[in-house]
Amino acid sequence: MPEFRKWILARHPVGLPERDCFALEPCALSDIREGEVLIKVDYFSLDPGMRGRLSGDSYAAGLKIGDTIESAGVGTVLESKSDKFAPGDVVSGALGWSEATVHRDRGLKIIEPSLLSKHVSATAFIGVLGVPGLTAWFGLNDLGRPSEGDTLLISSAAGPVGATCGQLGKHMGLKVVGIAGGPEKCAYLQTLGFDDTIDYKADMPLETAIAAACAEGVNIFFDNVGAETLDAALVNMAAGGRIVVSGQVAEYNRQNPVGIREVTRFITHRLRMEGLVVYDYAPKFTDAIGQMAELINAGKLAYTEDIIAGIENAPDAYAGLFGGENLGRRLIKT
Amino acid sequence: MPEFRKWILARHPVGLPERDCFALEPCALSDIREGEVLIKVDYFSLDPGMRGRLSGDSYAAGLKIGDTIESAGVGTVLESKSDKFAPGDVVSGALGWSEATVHRDRGLKIIEPSLLSKHVSATAFIGVLGVPGLTAWFGLNDLGRPSEGDTLLISSAAGPVGATCGQLGKHMGLKVVGIAGGPEKCAYLQTLGFDDTIDYKADMPLETAIAAACAEGVNIFFDNVGAETLDAALVNMAAGGRIVVSGQVAEYNRQNPVGIREVTRFITHRLRMEGLVVYDYAPKFTDAIGQMAELINAGKLAYTEDIIAGIENAPDAYAGLFGGENLGRRLIKT
Repeated sequence: MPEFRKWILARHPVGLPERDCFALEPCALSDIREGEVLIKVDYFSLDPGMRGRLSGDSYAAGLKIGDTIESAGVGTVLESKSDKFAPGDVVSGALGWSEATVHRDRGLKIIEPSLLSKHVSATAFIGVLGVPGLTAWFGLNDLGRPSEGDTLLISSAAGPVGATCGQLGKHMGLKVVGIAGGPEKCAYLQTLGFDDTIDYKADMPLETAIAAACAEGVNIFFDNVGAETLDAALVNMAAGGRIVVSGQVAEYNRQNPVGIREVTRFITHRLRMEGLVVYDYAPKFTDAIGQMAELINAGKLAYTEDIIAGIENAPDAYAGLFGGENLGRRLIKT
Repeated sequence: MPEFRKWILARHPVGLPERDCFALEPCALSDIREGEVLIKVDYFSLDPGMRGRLSGDSYAAGLKIGDTIESAGVGTVLESKSDKFAPGDVVSGALGWSEATVHRDRGLKIIEPSLLSKHVSATAFIGVLGVPGLTAWFGLNDLGRPSEGDTLLISSAAGPVGATCGQLGKHMGLKVVGIAGGPEKCAYLQTLGFDDTIDYKADMPLETAIAAACAEGVNIFFDNVGAETLDAALVNMAAGGRIVVSGQVAEYNRQNPVGIREVTRFITHRLRMEGLVVYDYAPKFTDAIGQMAELINAGKLAYTEDIIAGIENAPDAYAGLFGGENLGRRLIKT
């Protein structure tokens, strides 16, 4: 068997996760037992939302030193001691920052070849049809409670969650405004059909830029950023506005969170703010994935992947997410 | 006609409203016109929530220099040019910080003598059966979504909103914990049936005190205070917790709001935070007032008034609200 490698946690990061927080080690792949499968990992994802688990203070159990870094992945079954999987099956699951892994036969999903198409790659199942896409879908539908004609504002709009959310919003008849960093990302949002974009690196102060782009106020703010960005949106919310707290990437690396100041707006403008944990909607995943796959195949829902080859590049590529250097879902091809 | 007086806005306060923000002037009571009534004001209320209107930046239109200070009041009709009211009628409405006022015949409610009892005074209709009580009722029922056995935490619990909310919570089978300042207020909450109390002046840090009193986490936080108090509650919320933003008294006098830092908790604990504007529930007021009046008459809902005699004392009594010196609804008896 070839030598497979994986990234483990070497120390808990304080602030931005630096290279020496991670260590690349050989996978000690023991013989697989009954109910297990050996998977060669083809792609794994890099997610800002996983940052909390590196510190050990998030909703999922924090990682301990020596644990494999967690992430969603797509892989191919090499060996199986489960009747659910056979060698050659392509599967998605929590495979980790790894070139290969032994996994129990639960929590893995076979990606049926029939679901793949010119438009739908296997990696879509850990992207637009995985957690990021489902976060957009349930956040917008369930917490955003959209009505035709509403103004939907999205932060980190060029990321995989934001870009999906904005396109879904357009299909629902919303006015969609995206906040992103730099002209390239803003141009990308235009190609996705966004009505307007705000370049937070240029269009400052953000509060004024939002007011200009959302003249009738923001009915739904789908927030992936938090802190100052959330405050700038709060003062622009229309009465009865809904704030979907999808991510707080501006806070993840801060030792002391910044938070928001404009809480009195919740009274003056009857606002509602709600946090999203996508796993709460697990029973509805299959239906949502089906509907989104249809949109993709009809050419109505685009997704972009930012694929970096080589497991050795994972830590730097991960840190780069917090500087906003990626366009689309960032994946490592092992 | 005797000389009646009223308080007008002399300058917009910055920070705590000081005495010279207000000026006591004679009421220039013109002859009343068709559709108007002349009311002798018997009591008016002092409300922290009105603070925003003094600066002119709240949800209701801000006051201009020279405007009569707004408040709820109870009065007696002296003269009427409306077929809806007759001299001697006792009415409640937005009568202002005034000893008498000419008011249109809309927005006034007759307090039927049959509704008054040993337990229900006319002033109840601007307190426990007025905006404060209705805020507690709709905030708890509609935004709090209580389930039997839930833990309900209330800030400014000895105030008129908080004290009503806590008693309603007990009738619903909730565990009720109140935050108040000083042993006298905490003892008062015990007499109202609160399960536990936190003296924020003594039981510091607040975050630890809440954790101790709410061992299974807070399911509903009914917040009248905001800022640091809200943050201390946020880190103690149970998964799926609801935060009712009823008031933000800690923010009203601040030129720069403090806000909250623990926004990532909204994701990790699936929290929902919602602001309350009680007037949104106006069509349901009569029903709620009837149900609360029944509770009062059955001895199951107590309310406390802090009545100060003399219109000349209104500004100092108002400023004192922000120092927490009152126990119960603070009223001026003119």
